[in-house]
Order: sequence, then structure tokens, then C-alpha cells
Amino acid sequence: MRIIVVGAEGDIGKAVCDELGFRHEIIKAGRSSGEIQVDIANRASVDAMYARCAKVDAVVSTAGDVHFGALGEYTEETFMLGLRHKVMGQVNLVLAGLAKLSDGGSFTLTSGVLDRDPIRTGTGAATANGALGGFVLGAAIEMPRGLRINAVSPGLLAVSAPRYGEWFPGHEPVPSKRVGLAYAKSVEGAITGKVIIVG
Amino acid sequence: MRIIVVGAEGDIGKAVCDELGFRHEIIKAGRSSGEIQVDIANRASVDAMYARCAKVDAVVSTAGDVHFGALGEYTEETFMLGLRHKVMGQVNLVLAGLAKLSDGGSFTLTSGVLDRDPIRTGTGAATANGALGGFVLGAAIEMPRGLRINAVSPGLLAVSAPRYGEWFPGHEPVPSKRVGLAYAKSVEGAITGKVIIVG
Repeated sequence: MRIIVVGAEGDIGKAVCDELGFRHEIIKAGRSSGEIQVDIANRASVDAMYARCAKVDAVVSTAGDVHFGALGEYTEETFMLGLRHKVMGQVNLVLAGLAKLSDGGSFTLTSGVLDRDPIRTGTGAATANGALGGFVLGAAIEMPRGLRINAVSPGLLAVSAPRYGEWFPGHEPVPSKRVGLAYAKSVEGAITGKVIIVG
Repeated sequence: MRIIVVGAEGDIGKAVCDELGFRHEIIKAGRSSGEIQVDIANRASVDAMYARCAKVDAVVSTAGDVHFGALGEYTEETFMLGLRHKVMGQVNLVLAGLAKLSDGGSFTLTSGVLDRDPIRTGTGAATANGALGGFVLGAAIEMPRGLRINAVSPGLLAVSAPRYGEWFPGHEPVPSKRVGLAYAKSVEGAITGKVIIVG
């Protein structure tokens, strides 16, 4: 398969590329790294990314910004960041990609642990993650041409724990290998409309 | 209790007022009806609503617009409607209300059935509903002064079925009485961080 991985240079993106890269052709995309630069929150940028790629069989997104902050300190602007970027950005990849993917292709988005195991300052992420779970469930039943869509919801990665672990008290970090497998299940398997938890 | 019900004149709002109105003082708010007019997607309008109310013990929101359309026909603008209005609008009621509610008060938001039982054209609603589920889970653990927060996720109301039922094939309509009870559970009970399903 030819697979676009958006956010390929992040911790999750590397796990995806390590798992899928041996068996498939990976096109790495990212905001400032990779072969193709793309701003997922900008639909024109997403369209331009697809225009640069020939036939693609799968799109994996591990991208999406959210603001972290105490509940009482969120403004409308900081709260909307996750909805505009992590949610709408990944939805843009799907809406723009519907006509671009090969028959039977797949979208795999990334949500996260915070809508099932919340932490302080994580309300924006919890909201975005929940939104993405609802989106893949709803979108799956309307996919044309046998396309599939899932989201992976990974816990805090072990490789990310030195940077972020102090905000996740008691969370058990997950190995990148297990995270990569979840994306393989979505891309190479047959399920659709699922949130694949790596807890 | 003094309870603000936003969207009080809608089908769900009426169910809430019928259940809670005998035991509590209800302040009806709505976009164009009720005692107080409020545009929940406009934070200044939400602030103005709270400024007009004296001490409030509970806020119930049954308001929030989403766009319905075939997945392939969503634009960024139509997709964002649900995120801006149904999600951010209800989040605005919480963020602006954190300092306004009495100690031990509660927020009760409204999501819906489509992130657990999807229909065609319902992706925007599925996304908004999932977002609200994530929000209440995340926000509950950061609530100050014993405040609580839940969402009610009602199925298609029997009273709404004549207008919308054709888009919900096979969905079993729920009586308004059962919907009202779910809001009573949130407002008068002690749970927090829950999505209360009325299926």
C-alpha cells in the first residue's frame, strides 16, 4: 500500500512508520517536517497535499493540537484550538480524502486517552478526543467505495513520558510497539467505525 | 433550587421543565423565547444571561445547533457549526457559569444518540455529541466548590418523531417523561462526569 502518515515525525507517527514502513510505501507529511508540508487546519493546504500524491491507499493522521489549561482558565479561543485543529484538522483529511483514496482504502485518526481517563488541565483534549470518537462512528456508515475509518486512542507513550509524564499521575505508559500495532490493525485489518484503545 | 433551563421551549426543554418545574424555580432562557434571550455561541451573551440572574443552583442546557448533511457534502463551515454552537456554546455556559453557580450546584448539558447509534447525514451531530461526552468527563474532575457536571444523551423523542423520525430508521422513540427523569437524576442526584443515556 501507499500510505500517507501525517505527523510522521512525532512520537506516535514514528511508532506508525516503524510498524508499517517495512511492508508499505510511506509518504511522510507534517507541519514542518517530512516530504510534504501540510497544515491540517487549512483545507486548502490539505487539498494541496492530496494533489501532490498519486493514488493513496491509506491515510494515517497522528496530528492535532490542543490547548492544556485549568478548566477555569480556558477562554473561547484556547478551548476552540482543539476543536479547530485536532478535530476539524483531522476531519479535513477525511473530507478532502474521500475522493482521493483507492477503493477499499482507510483513514486512521488519532484521539487519545483523556476522554476515558482524564487528567487536570486536559478538558480541551478530552473534548477533542470524544469528538473524534463520535466522528469515526458516524462517518463509517457513510463511507463510499468500501472505504473504512477508525481512530486509535493511545495512552501516554513511554517515549513521551519523560516530557509529559508528570501531568499524567498513575497513567501506565504504553510502548511504541503496541501503539504501532493498533494502527496496523486499522490499516491492514477490516474493521471500521471503531476507536482502538491502547491502554 | 433556582434552575436556568436554556432551550426551555424545545421538545427536550419542555420535558425538563415538566419534570423539574413543580419542585423548583425555573428560569427559562432561549434564543428567541423564554424570559431571557441568549445566544450560547456568543460568550458575551452568556455572560449577560448570568448577570441578569441572581444566585443559581443549576444550569440545564438543551440547546445547540448542528448541520445535517451527507458526509461527502460537508464543508468546513457546515461541519464546524456543531463544534462552534452545540459544543462551544454549551461549554460557554459552563466556563461562564463556574463562578456563578451556588456551591454544590450542577451543569447538565445535552448530547444525543448519534455518537452511539449513528444515522446517515448525522456525522456533525455524532462529532458534537462525542465532544460533549469527553467534556463532561474531563471537566468533572476540575469542578470547584463541589459543582457537578453531566450530559444527558436522549434518543429521538416521541414528540419529535413526526418531524424527524424518517431520518432515524428503526430508532425507538423515547417518551418525554423518561427524558425529563434523566435531567432530574443529574440535577437532583449526586453523580458527576457521566453521560446519562435515555435509549
